Amino acid sequence: MNTLTKIALPVALTALPVMGLADEGPVAGVNASTDTVFILNSLLFLVGGFLVFFMAAGFAMLEAGLVRSKNVAMQLTKNMALFGLASIFYYLIGYNLMYPLGTWSVEGVLSGVWGPGILEAVGVTSDAADDYGYASTGSDFFFQLMFCAATASIVSGTMAERVKLWPFLIFTVILTSVIYPWSASWKWGGGFLDAAGFLDFAGSTVVHSVGGWAALTGAIILGPRIGKYKDGRTVPMPGSNLTLATLGTFILWLGWFGFNGGSQLAMGTVGDVADVSRIFSNTNTAAAGGAIAALILTQIMYKKPDLTMVLNGALAGLVSITAEPLTPSLGMATIIGAVGGVIVVFAVPMLDKLKIDDVVGAIPVHLIAGIWGTLAVVLTNSDATIGAQLYGIVVVGAFTVVASTVVWFVIKMTMGLRVDEETEINGLDMAELGMEAYPEFTNG
Amino acid sequence: MNTLTKIALPVALTALPVMGLADEGPVAGVNASTDTVFILNSLLFLVGGFLVFFMAAGFAMLEAGLVRSKNVAMQLTKNMALFGLASIFYYLIGYNLMYPLGTWSVEGVLSGVWGPGILEAVGVTSDAADDYGYASTGSDFFFQLMFCAATASIVSGTMAERVKLWPFLIFTVILTSVIYPWSASWKWGGGFLDAAGFLDFAGSTVVHSVGGWAALTGAIILGPRIGKYKDGRTVPMPGSNLTLATLGTFILWLGWFGFNGGSQLAMGTVGDVADVSRIFSNTNTAAAGGAIAALILTQIMYKKPDLTMVLNGALAGLVSITAEPLTPSLGMATIIGAVGGVIVVFAVPMLDKLKIDDVVGAIPVHLIAGIWGTLAVVLTNSDATIGAQLYGIVVVGAFTVVASTVVWFVIKMTMGLRVDEETEINGLDMAELGMEAYPEFTNG
Amino acid sequence: MNTLTKIALPVALTALPVMGLADEGPVAGVNASTDTVFILNSLLFLVGGFLVFFMAAGFAMLEAGLVRSKNVAMQLTKNMALFGLASIFYYLIGYNLMYPLGTWSVEGVLSGVWGPGILEAVGVTSDAADDYGYASTGSDFFFQLMFCAATASIVSGTMAERVKLWPFLIFTVILTSVIYPWSASWKWGGGFLDAAGFLDFAGSTVVHSVGGWAALTGAIILGPRIGKYKDGRTVPMPGSNLTLATLGTFILWLGWFGFNGGSQLAMGTVGDVADVSRIFSNTNTAAAGGAIAALILTQIMYKKPDLTMVLNGALAGLVSITAEPLTPSLGMATIIGAVGGVIVVFAVPMLDKLKIDDVVGAIPVHLIAGIWGTLAVVLTNSDATIGAQLYGIVVVGAFTVVASTVVWFVIKMTMGLRVDEETEINGLDMAELGMEAYPEFTNG
Repeated sequence: MNTLTKIALPVALTALPVMGLADEGPVAGVNASTDTVFILNSLLFLVGGFLVFFMAAGFAMLEAGLVRSKNVAMQLTKNMALFGLASIFYYLIGYNLMYPLGTWSVEGVLSGVWGPGILEAVGVTSDAADDYGYASTGSDFFFQLMFCAATASIVSGTMAERVKLWPFLIFTVILTSVIYPWSASWKWGGGFLDAAGFLDFAGSTVVHSVGGWAALTGAIILGPRIGKYKDGRTVPMPGSNLTLATLGTFILWLGWFGFNGGSQLAMGTVGDVADVSRIFSNTNTAAAGGAIAALILTQIMYKKPDLTMVLNGALAGLVSITAEPLTPSLGMATIIGAVGGVIVVFAVPMLDKLKIDDVVGAIPVHLIAGIWGTLAVVLTNSDATIGAQLYGIVVVGAFTVVASTVVWFVIKMTMGLRVDEETEINGLDMAELGMEAYPEFTNG
Repeated sequence: MNTLTKIALPVALTALPVMGLADEGPVAGVNASTDTVFILNSLLFLVGGFLVFFMAAGFAMLEAGLVRSKNVAMQLTKNMALFGLASIFYYLIGYNLMYPLGTWSVEGVLSGVWGPGILEAVGVTSDAADDYGYASTGSDFFFQLMFCAATASIVSGTMAERVKLWPFLIFTVILTSVIYPWSASWKWGGGFLDAAGFLDFAGSTVVHSVGGWAALTGAIILGPRIGKYKDGRTVPMPGSNLTLATLGTFILWLGWFGFNGGSQLAMGTVGDVADVSRIFSNTNTAAAGGAIAALILTQIMYKKPDLTMVLNGALAGLVSITAEPLTPSLGMATIIGAVGGVIVVFAVPMLDKLKIDDVVGAIPVHLIAGIWGTLAVVLTNSDATIGAQLYGIVVVGAFTVVASTVVWFVIKMTMGLRVDEETEINGLDMAELGMEAYPEFTNG
Repeated sequence: MNTLTKIALPVALTALPVMGLADEGPVAGVNASTDTVFILNSLLFLVGGFLVFFMAAGFAMLEAGLVRSKNVAMQLTKNMALFGLASIFYYLIGYNLMYPLGTWSVEGVLSGVWGPGILEAVGVTSDAADDYGYASTGSDFFFQLMFCAATASIVSGTMAERVKLWPFLIFTVILTSVIYPWSASWKWGGGFLDAAGFLDFAGSTVVHSVGGWAALTGAIILGPRIGKYKDGRTVPMPGSNLTLATLGTFILWLGWFGFNGGSQLAMGTVGDVADVSRIFSNTNTAAAGGAIAALILTQIMYKKPDLTMVLNGALAGLVSITAEPLTPSLGMATIIGAVGGVIVVFAVPMLDKLKIDDVVGAIPVHLIAGIWGTLAVVLTNSDATIGAQLYGIVVVGAFTVVASTVVWFVIKMTMGLRVDEETEINGLDMAELGMEAYPEFTNG
């Protein structure tokens, strides 16, 4: 033992109390350690991820509640299947397409049993601290996957009650393997939209508008339900279970805390957790603004409040705040959300005028409010420019419309997209599944 | 470089392994750093907050399940709307009224777009550590807001099936802007009840009894549903969907982990997280005690167990443990909850005898079990005195009854509180909303 | 002050910036402190625990959706009651039987009010760091309790629509007090199965097969529902509400992230959180694999996809990955789950051939897929041997079958197990509860 180490030992002992070895309360002013930061960031992805996962149940309940009972079992089958397919194909193709810096390769996919090598080895340690990014790859994959699945869920609602199961699922596979991940990479994969200054915090455009555009092109190509537009009138086809539609809305609202809050992508510093907290608060108040705006507006316009508009108003408020849930004040977030609610009330009848039959109102909620939310970034974030925002909206929109149109048309030409008239009138459940969602209840 | 620093360098290098730089496992006996404590406290509020948020869905499902189908859409509309209004008005007025040390001011509200300046700036750092309390303001606001909304949800169930929408919503605005925040400030804002030694950990009195008193005064002023009490008999009006009522109960039970656990208000030390864990366990076992007590008691009293009593028994168990979820042993928590379940079984018919028509049983669950829970604090917490507990119960109760009565009466005199007879008999859904919750199912 | 300490002071000051006192970002390469590790481990149990808690709601919705409407209220009552009883009896007996190193004693139970002393004192500190394990006892108890309750939930679905309420609940008490905790202790309490090298990460055998074996013996002893097997044919008795069955499946899927992820039992190191992340991802993809496999297989075999098979396929995928959710690659996890889905599609009709009437398909999902999952550990975990896995499966299976048979028979002989024929035909709800789940809807 040389002199220096002889000195070092007592020094360390003296120094330790300063660092909190004795139980004197938190260590003042010390940042979290790299390990703690890594753990907390990963935890944000995991908690955010399971909240966004639950949105799959929210979409399923919303859509099952808003279709007629004869099509409910099919709508549930589509929601369950699309989530399963999104999980598998985003793993096989999408994730690596979206984050091209990943280690994906044909060899990687073929080695082992498909294992793309994207997840860390079991029981990794932090010995080689430089090897670690800021969070575990598994948590990031889990979180990102849920966004991909949400995009696909948006489409299923619009096209309900008339699209065939397997053609719809094939579209889902292409959407979740290619269309969403590729366009998302332009922003979130560090692509050209990101370089151009386009801002979209949690995906008003990247997720919601993409789903909305795909739904819109699908709805146009598919055509409206039989009897929906008759003699210039729009025939109401009320949803069969508004309780479950409301439950679905609440679940989506809950999931959105993960959707927007998790998109902070970090929780290991004081600043990050404070930002996540702002985002939670703003997300909530935007939904409230959207719901209340739709409530008041339908009361004024129709003398009766409209529950489905209130539900879609809340969702539109959520979509509207998604592009920038961090920088607005609570008041501004409420207004941004309220504008989303107003949009829904006007856009739903407008789509009907255009004879675009959107069964659950997903196009107003996800596409139109998504565009609004993307533009609204400029109101509170000085880094945003209206030019860059428009550029992102147009590029993503044009790509999604073209790609979706091609895919929908190819499917239509090859295997057909729509059930036959008899099936549609009798309901898809008995014809395509041979079962009913509520076999003991329906009175027709 | 002087001698000291020459020495210091190798010393630091020698000392570092002691602090864990090499991967030798956790640093022994060292407290979490201030940053980590701040993050973990904020995280508790965020996770607790989203769980309590989800209680809004639980109340909506419970109430939709316990009203008759002709009033379900209206009940859902009320629940969605009251949550939206609570979010907005607690932000505009309530939060700053409840925590008067906040920076709220007319100027603050007017500056920017309403921005009350209650949330930290974006991207704060911990440079100036002294500026930080123990958690982010945004997370605290988010958490506290959910308690305010829960208070309003309690009222909607009792007054279901006959109260007009807008008058009810106006009451909600006043409840969430003033009545709840003001009375809550007496305890949780560091007010005179707190100074008097009144103990209410998570709000058996502050939240649940306030909601319950508001519901009780409303029910009395509103009167019972047509046909509920006839020739001295109570006519059963069974809920239309017990599956959703059960789902609502489970969701509320889930949310209560956030409600009580989050009310520890800190998770950054070993002691705090151990306390949160105790609270989770006690909260769960109290609900179990309440459910099982109601199950056994209804079996004994009526020879048949009563599912709605079991559901309300679980909820009463949860309310009972809310004033003190920390100090009881698991056994004591089970008993405290079980007494709550017993209360419900006796209080429901008692209210009917008094011709107070509480559609979902919210008064027994939230008010009477809330009083019991507040008194039960003295059983396990030696800091509590029966005098202080009674003082708090009486003061909060008297204030809420007087304030609610005034508001209900003013609304009744000006715009009316109750739908007309025809509307009530035909159901509020068609008359007030022009839509049904289950348009394809009802057989009447 | 001697020379050494005179040197030490400036050294400490010099060294501090290296440790991050100045706000220079995370402290490089430093492990989390023991306190932080303790907090994060406890947090994993709490979050995992509330997710698994929510599975009780998932089971309730799944089962309520898959029984006929005349038995729904009873099924809900059973689910609510079994969770309450599991909570109480796992606390009174089970937890201490499962972890025999606990401090349980008759004296302990009698002292205070039952308090078994298993939870830390309120407001513990980390002064005496050696007293602490790696997480708070309360959080561990909370987490473990939920597994016990899940085991009981499995049984209720299989035996629906004909078992009497109280006999079923008595079985539940014995299952949650003794059968589950005792057999679980052989693996998770550090017992002989653990010593024999039997691997079961989160309980494909320990939880799911135990529930499945108990359900199987119960179903055999109870016999099939009246009219289920007639003239050699199986008469379909479709579930009354597939929307709620789907919701239940999604809730179970959500809860499974806590079930498997929480079973990592630690989140305080980089390696642990990375493992939890892998587990989340693998759990999700296994469910997806199970759902899609069942979808495709039913399409091929029956020309129509079968929603209930898709739901049970997802659940079977989840059960299959439960014994080893960590070591598989994503691809392998998908395959393991898909095999689970295939098992369900073949096992459901096979059970019907054997005239074993499993109302919700719990035996294929939890027992058969549980066995598959337990064997599948050898595919990816080199510590596993087929011998040890079979040993565990057989020992746990034999014990559960014998114990369950004895209990079911004793109950059958003493108080009877099955409702009378008239009650079964008219539905348990009116006969045993005097209420209906959907009083306004049923059209019979």
